[in-house]
Amino acid sequence: MREITEEDLLPAAIGAGILGTGGGGNPYLGRLRARQQLRAGRRIRVVDPADLADDDLLVVAGGMGSPVVAYEKVAGGNEETDAVRALERHLGRSFTAIAPFEMGGGNSMVPLVIGASLDIPVVDGDGMGRAFPELQMITYLIYGGNPAPAALADERGNRLVLEQVVDAGWLERLLRTTTIDMGGHAGLATAVMDGAFCRKTIIPNTLTLAGRIGEAVLTARAGHMNPSNAILEIAGGRRYLRGKVVDVERRTTRGFARGRLVLDGSDDDAGRRIEIDFQNENLVIREDGDPKVTVPDLITLVTSEEGEPITTELVRYGYRADVLVIPCPDLLKTDRALEVVGPRAFGYDVDYRPFVGG
Amino acid sequence: MREITEEDLLPAAIGAGILGTGGGGNPYLGRLRARQQLRAGRRIRVVDPADLADDDLLVVAGGMGSPVVAYEKVAGGNEETDAVRALERHLGRSFTAIAPFEMGGGNSMVPLVIGASLDIPVVDGDGMGRAFPELQMITYLIYGGNPAPAALADERGNRLVLEQVVDAGWLERLLRTTTIDMGGHAGLATAVMDGAFCRKTIIPNTLTLAGRIGEAVLTARAGHMNPSNAILEIAGGRRYLRGKVVDVERRTTRGFARGRLVLDGSDDDAGRRIEIDFQNENLVIREDGDPKVTVPDLITLVTSEEGEPITTELVRYGYRADVLVIPCPDLLKTDRALEVVGPRAFGYDVDYRPFVGG
Repeated sequence: MREITEEDLLPAAIGAGILGTGGGGNPYLGRLRARQQLRAGRRIRVVDPADLADDDLLVVAGGMGSPVVAYEKVAGGNEETDAVRALERHLGRSFTAIAPFEMGGGNSMVPLVIGASLDIPVVDGDGMGRAFPELQMITYLIYGGNPAPAALADERGNRLVLEQVVDAGWLERLLRTTTIDMGGHAGLATAVMDGAFCRKTIIPNTLTLAGRIGEAVLTARAGHMNPSNAILEIAGGRRYLRGKVVDVERRTTRGFARGRLVLDGSDDDAGRRIEIDFQNENLVIREDGDPKVTVPDLITLVTSEEGEPITTELVRYGYRADVLVIPCPDLLKTDRALEVVGPRAFGYDVDYRPFVGG
Repeated sequence: MREITEEDLLPAAIGAGILGTGGGGNPYLGRLRARQQLRAGRRIRVVDPADLADDDLLVVAGGMGSPVVAYEKVAGGNEETDAVRALERHLGRSFTAIAPFEMGGGNSMVPLVIGASLDIPVVDGDGMGRAFPELQMITYLIYGGNPAPAALADERGNRLVLEQVVDAGWLERLLRTTTIDMGGHAGLATAVMDGAFCRKTIIPNTLTLAGRIGEAVLTARAGHMNPSNAILEIAGGRRYLRGKVVDVERRTTRGFARGRLVLDGSDDDAGRRIEIDFQNENLVIREDGDPKVTVPDLITLVTSEEGEPITTELVRYGYRADVLVIPCPDLLKTDRALEVVGPRAFGYDVDYRPFVGG
């Protein structure tokens, strides 16, 4: 068990932005909310998944909704905690720790806020090792966790418990439209599990990883070193392209930010052109007409000079970016996981082939 | 307390179709489901609201969704009961009786099915004295009942409890889109109340009224009498027009069947033309450009020869119809009720003026 201090928040937020592969929203607001908890005298405790007791009772909790909306509409701050409390009432039991959905963007910080507010620890790890757009894409559910009961709450005081649901796809479907009704953002709690199950299905130590990546970026900036190299040294993978964003198509449909980026290479990559499709997160890199990198591998854009993660909702024409590819965690590479988070799950008629760094 | 027999079902269904003012769906399916319960040896008991004990525990239960969809997709039969049971589990108490939403169309029969299935009585009365398109339009909620907790269930096994909701408008909003997600039809339970509150807010004895109207229609048919006159003798009101449907515009949006009918008068009404706007139910009669009759008064179309109610989802060019106007119950005429069910609540810039029969 360790405690998060204010100094830990900035690097973790930068790292979570990078692991967020363009999605999950800007971590800035989540970081402010976590800081607010600390300044109010609450504690943010983090527990290693290896240290969970078999009979710990965990809940996966965070924010649900389009990052575009979350950015425009500052979360009220209680809806995620309200959702967790609603599940506690439904079960008649108290949770002993919070398990994060995703280590990507703002939603990586939200579990810290919930844990502080409820005075229970947050597990160091998450269900994606990155960000993904849909609920069924968390390892806890991919590997057999229960989508129900789940709870959804908004900042006005609307609150529901999904008592039973056919499967994780229905969880996503029913809660997505309710979230849109609630104004595009809601607090969510689901996938109640014990410590033994969490140890087996969580992608471990990703909060620590995010912090290390963020520290490396900050150190590189301070020393005028190349931040992309610093990121890749910690996270693995390689730079796919250095270039400039020359086109962005974007639309928000059914609560998702979907679209396509085009980048032209510069420096050593001059003359190359790539396209990146996204649905909240970057999904596929295409070059010369072929998909070269696909989900679940991580495709992330950072500014070439500062190593600042670039989210799909803010990216625009003219950005100078390094396109980094980071290998995904092994738990996402099984046949079972690829059915849910592989390229075919996003409508691409290709098989996943792990990107080999070089 | 009285028992409903198979012979009671047909007249009650006809009467409920007439009180349904074009909405609530075709009562035929609901009647078949109620008959199925009786033939399976279950009992349908009906209690007069005056006989409710102060501490009876009631729930308002029925089907939610567009009648167009309900007609195409035969309800599975368990979703309404599942919703009621989910609320019982949530409260940790059992209901002693079912209070109907509306005495209109198929939803007037569904409470009988639920009561039989749970072996508890159904209150003789409802929350509309007719049918209306939206949830907040029931007298129980208009007069201060609690929209939450509420439960929604579908035939696949998806089930949710709305634990808290800002107001009845949010109940409608959140459950409407979830119902659409569930395929357009769901079972609903809401407005938990005690017997004392139900006695004050229910529109009483409308199941009995529906049965009497239906009996009058059947008797008129058997004796080759005018069925419209027979209906009006029981229900009050008068025939506004006898004519022919010459135009129908219809669209299904956000789960509602909306549209407009045009009728040309015949017989004594030759030379007149009226328009009727509907949103599931008939809302307004316009003639010579002015609204002549509006909600909450009942505007209902029956076939001229048979007195068979004509629903807005099935009405089409060429139907010969009597347009009947029946005065609404007094509980819908207060300022408080007119805010929710008067013409302004449906977007019309006119005040309600009770239609005077002549």
